[in-house]
Amino acid sequence: MKSFASDNYAGVSPEVMEAMVMANVGHAPAYGNDELTQLAKDKIKALFKTDPRVFFVMNGTGANVTALKTFCRSHETVVCADVAHINTDECGAPEHHLGGKLTYIKTEDGKITPEQIKPLLSIKGVQHRVQPKVVSITQPTEFGVLYSTEEIQSLSAFCKENELILHVDGARIANAVVALDTPVHEMLKGVDIISFGGTKNGMMMGESVVFQNKELADYYPFIRKQSMQLLSKMRYISAQFDAYLTNDLWKKNATHANKMAQHLAEGLKEFDQIKITHSVDVNGIFAELPTDLIPVLQEKYPFYIFDESRNLARLMCSFDTTTEDIQGFLELIHQHYAN
Amino acid sequence: MKSFASDNYAGVSPEVMEAMVMANVGHAPAYGNDELTQLAKDKIKALFKTDPRVFFVMNGTGANVTALKTFCRSHETVVCADVAHINTDECGAPEHHLGGKLTYIKTEDGKITPEQIKPLLSIKGVQHRVQPKVVSITQPTEFGVLYSTEEIQSLSAFCKENELILHVDGARIANAVVALDTPVHEMLKGVDIISFGGTKNGMMMGESVVFQNKELADYYPFIRKQSMQLLSKMRYISAQFDAYLTNDLWKKNATHANKMAQHLAEGLKEFDQIKITHSVDVNGIFAELPTDLIPVLQEKYPFYIFDESRNLARLMCSFDTTTEDIQGFLELIHQHYAN
Amino acid sequence: MKSFASDNYAGVSPEVMEAMVMANVGHAPAYGNDELTQLAKDKIKALFKTDPRVFFVMNGTGANVTALKTFCRSHETVVCADVAHINTDECGAPEHHLGGKLTYIKTEDGKITPEQIKPLLSIKGVQHRVQPKVVSITQPTEFGVLYSTEEIQSLSAFCKENELILHVDGARIANAVVALDTPVHEMLKGVDIISFGGTKNGMMMGESVVFQNKELADYYPFIRKQSMQLLSKMRYISAQFDAYLTNDLWKKNATHANKMAQHLAEGLKEFDQIKITHSVDVNGIFAELPTDLIPVLQEKYPFYIFDESRNLARLMCSFDTTTEDIQGFLELIHQHYAN
Amino acid sequence: MKSFASDNYAGVSPEVMEAMVMANVGHAPAYGNDELTQLAKDKIKALFKTDPRVFFVMNGTGANVTALKTFCRSHETVVCADVAHINTDECGAPEHHLGGKLTYIKTEDGKITPEQIKPLLSIKGVQHRVQPKVVSITQPTEFGVLYSTEEIQSLSAFCKENELILHVDGARIANAVVALDTPVHEMLKGVDIISFGGTKNGMMMGESVVFQNKELADYYPFIRKQSMQLLSKMRYISAQFDAYLTNDLWKKNATHANKMAQHLAEGLKEFDQIKITHSVDVNGIFAELPTDLIPVLQEKYPFYIFDESRNLARLMCSFDTTTEDIQGFLELIHQHYAN
Repeated sequence: MKSFASDNYAGVSPEVMEAMVMANVGHAPAYGNDELTQLAKDKIKALFKTDPRVFFVMNGTGANVTALKTFCRSHETVVCADVAHINTDECGAPEHHLGGKLTYIKTEDGKITPEQIKPLLSIKGVQHRVQPKVVSITQPTEFGVLYSTEEIQSLSAFCKENELILHVDGARIANAVVALDTPVHEMLKGVDIISFGGTKNGMMMGESVVFQNKELADYYPFIRKQSMQLLSKMRYISAQFDAYLTNDLWKKNATHANKMAQHLAEGLKEFDQIKITHSVDVNGIFAELPTDLIPVLQEKYPFYIFDESRNLARLMCSFDTTTEDIQGFLELIHQHYAN
Repeated sequence: MKSFASDNYAGVSPEVMEAMVMANVGHAPAYGNDELTQLAKDKIKALFKTDPRVFFVMNGTGANVTALKTFCRSHETVVCADVAHINTDECGAPEHHLGGKLTYIKTEDGKITPEQIKPLLSIKGVQHRVQPKVVSITQPTEFGVLYSTEEIQSLSAFCKENELILHVDGARIANAVVALDTPVHEMLKGVDIISFGGTKNGMMMGESVVFQNKELADYYPFIRKQSMQLLSKMRYISAQFDAYLTNDLWKKNATHANKMAQHLAEGLKEFDQIKITHSVDVNGIFAELPTDLIPVLQEKYPFYIFDESRNLARLMCSFDTTTEDIQGFLELIHQHYAN
Repeated sequence: MKSFASDNYAGVSPEVMEAMVMANVGHAPAYGNDELTQLAKDKIKALFKTDPRVFFVMNGTGANVTALKTFCRSHETVVCADVAHINTDECGAPEHHLGGKLTYIKTEDGKITPEQIKPLLSIKGVQHRVQPKVVSITQPTEFGVLYSTEEIQSLSAFCKENELILHVDGARIANAVVALDTPVHEMLKGVDIISFGGTKNGMMMGESVVFQNKELADYYPFIRKQSMQLLSKMRYISAQFDAYLTNDLWKKNATHANKMAQHLAEGLKEFDQIKITHSVDVNGIFAELPTDLIPVLQEKYPFYIFDESRNLARLMCSFDTTTEDIQGFLELIHQHYAN
Repeated sequence: MKSFASDNYAGVSPEVMEAMVMANVGHAPAYGNDELTQLAKDKIKALFKTDPRVFFVMNGTGANVTALKTFCRSHETVVCADVAHINTDECGAPEHHLGGKLTYIKTEDGKITPEQIKPLLSIKGVQHRVQPKVVSITQPTEFGVLYSTEEIQSLSAFCKENELILHVDGARIANAVVALDTPVHEMLKGVDIISFGGTKNGMMMGESVVFQNKELADYYPFIRKQSMQLLSKMRYISAQFDAYLTNDLWKKNATHANKMAQHLAEGLKEFDQIKITHSVDVNGIFAELPTDLIPVLQEKYPFYIFDESRNLARLMCSFDTTTEDIQGFLELIHQHYAN
């Protein structure tokens, strides 16, 4: 089976899987006190110039929630986009674990700006209102759109001026890095905390939380444990990250996925019946599809309808999407309209 | 490196690792909607006669907390032993996620009885007090001691009489099953919910939650997601369980670990300087060691001191402990006292 | 000092105060086990035809949050209006205590309709999303606008069809009852739970939670205690409710406040510079005021600016607002524009 | 009705009630922004030499929980006595609101010592364990026993050395102050936070939270609101505190209650059948009573049985207990044994 449903439908990069097999020798200290974990953390640290503190967790929701929970108090609020994963797809986990409220901003493409955040600050100090503490952005957004490096810098400057913490949900950060062709340390300069993902780009299960603002991590080990995100046999996450960051595998995977999405987008543009609704910046395409076309395509290549009210489909490419997959998909559309 | 520190220091059974590699083909629906997950769940179901509902999570704390959270309200309390993992080793995760209180009973070996629970029920209906709702036992206990099948039946009957739910933390349930030589469905008859572990017995990461009391699971998928215990690429947990439950691998691993512990215990008994403090029912030995002996042993074979005030060591055997490991460990003691 | 700031700036009706003084004799069982509490609860029950369960709490936030908390689980969501008190003015208390998420609907006047709620139900059963469980409306809304009895019936029918619970935040329910000239039992027919307020209409501190859907209250005493809303010397809340519901004091107070608001609204309409933005259904007026006028008025009669971006003032009348207060306020406007 | 059930069964001091009546004039800013609130807070501040920050809340559970919640994080633990009100009588409110765990120490009389706390600190830094952050003591304890000023100083010094916060639950602090005949500022020197009670000593409803460690209060207004402990018509709590602290009313009430308890204790000592189990330091007596005597006494003077297993009664005196009450109670015992 192949699909455009999610980069979570894809499997594991062979290099990552091999590293896990290789790590399966003898005993190793549990809970991250092993050498491989240190090695893998160092590889992530090397991507930054700030000597950040790095921790591994098990999944993306875990990365986001523990990152925020470790410093955000229950009367404080996280400002985010309406479509942010933390706001829509985590079954209330942020509210549950933070014990507080998210404040979302209505957006077209999942991007938020300082201008939109500013009015929310007027309630600072009013005891009846939750207090803005964090701005959380997703890079790339849930609609596959990128913040430019300048836009992130602008948000970072705004947050510093207003004593706000800036968090980046980077579940697909690799796709952003290669699309912007900008080093991690530049793109994420001034960002306090990053959920630095791996699972969606060829790892099996494993995300990291990177604190450039190091003080914020003081309680993190306890919060991670309490949040049930501490894996006992940690070496098997570390082995994945180690391979993922070796020989630029993470960039190769992301570059491929992005390229496949471009390829697919070009093919779709040939059909007047199909309307691509958002900029295709990385590995996802959002497109309105004719009602009768959807089941024809889904039968062979499953994908999600993001907004049923307007037949808005999400088509995700991944590290293992092939040219044949793209061609097969486009061919189905051709056949449908040839009849 | 080999150790007696924890069954978490051990790696992954070759059969389990191979199954993960085999599962790494093509795309599969995420979040457990794949065929392999169904297959693995069916294998667990087949161990019971009650057609239970089965769910996979990522780690032991996750299994326990989500199992309890799914039905226990914030004003209700979980009755457990003082040394229960949920009470001591989860950094307050149960209280945090349940939003309420645990009530613990002082024990010698981690076992609790209906007689000890009964007095706690006198507060039922008093609005100032948390209300007993669940009894959670660990089989085998954190001191490596077993409840007999009859003792579990007696607790189950007591719980039913008193409208209490019975939960078993079975992080090492395989070791209990083979030690008691009793089928799962008999040993756990009448138990409402079981955390059925795999990680400590040769899996990489993966536990299951088994609801024999099926109504209690109605909200479980949401609670699992909100608790950040839902893995996207679920097939890689399922592959592990599938291999784990094939050809009795789980029993073979547990039988081996238990046998190694017996072997080690016999060796230790020869030394008057060493006092084994608890019945060695499964794969762990608790022993008071002379102060000067501890560092000598730990240098080559790491292990934990469970209670520093009395030099109480915990020595855990695992599926990959070898006769050579045992002999090497015992030899160090001989040498120490030969000098 | 007199003001149009809030019905919370007003004091206590003389009859209520006298009842508190009268209750101050001898000892009485604490926590509501006294006769006066039973008497007062019976007076509230008599307003309904459903033999509801009635409980007293200390403040409005306490009434709303405990009412919802007693049955709503952390993965379930409360659907409400954007301007709902629970959504904006309780410093995240609902999210904190429920451990979950509110879902709000954008409104003009704080009223929501079945048509707006319906699309939210499409996520039922999706484990990544919080599940709609309750609809909470405010009668009258935070903009002083009323749902008609028919509109409430329609919401009630919709909720029943869709297995949703209907909650009414009735912090100013008395003002609605007299404005609609409809008995409580008719206006609130089919509503599962009501926060039945007293503080804003002449009581000192005291609200009640009324469960027409009686099963939902099974855990309420524990939740109230855990939520720190159980007053030990309960008789002093009960005495207030007893007086409040005697000789229709509650209706007289509300009728007076509503009448004063009409009186004030009529006066304001004479000024072209002032724009009343919402229907004046009860005791509050929302009006856009010229920038230079605001400080002139606030100096003598404090009031709140509800939305600074458009100088939207909220002018609240209360049981003790006098014709002289109204005339004095209007006179200030006359003087301002006479100059 | 008169009773020895609880100082919560008693009513309100006439001076306090009169102050509430007097405060019922005109409008006043809500939520504590009124002059009377400032005045009352200043009276409490004047009892200390540290210019503390003072806040009013509604009840004792509210004072304790909000005081702890404002700085204690979910992975941190509050160390207290087994019989502490926060541990036994608040229906899990501390765990619910703090999102974490209490750690209790077994005691005879509710008093804990540095020696008992010290061993708990060995888990500092271990990520699997909740981290000791606060020591909470009750003065006088739930068994009516006092810490000496020296004992409190010793705990304070211990806490400072070990970076722990010291909290005093002073629901009956007035009784301690007069019994020790020590000024508040001396008795509570070095204590970071105090729940300074009023309700149990002649107020209607109202407690204060006093932060001598002022930094800890930075988030308090938000936490109080979120915890639903912010009264809108605050002036009516402030009026109570104002009267309570005028002309030493608080000390007079407490002195009387303590004296009545001494009186009652002396009477009880005459009976060999009755065994007073704890030192009678303030206004409560704990005594084991013969089974047949209990209903005879409770019929006329209700009181609580604290521990049914040994017929341990708690007899509380209050500001309005009279010599006649004492004599009447003793007379019943005489009659019982005269028969």
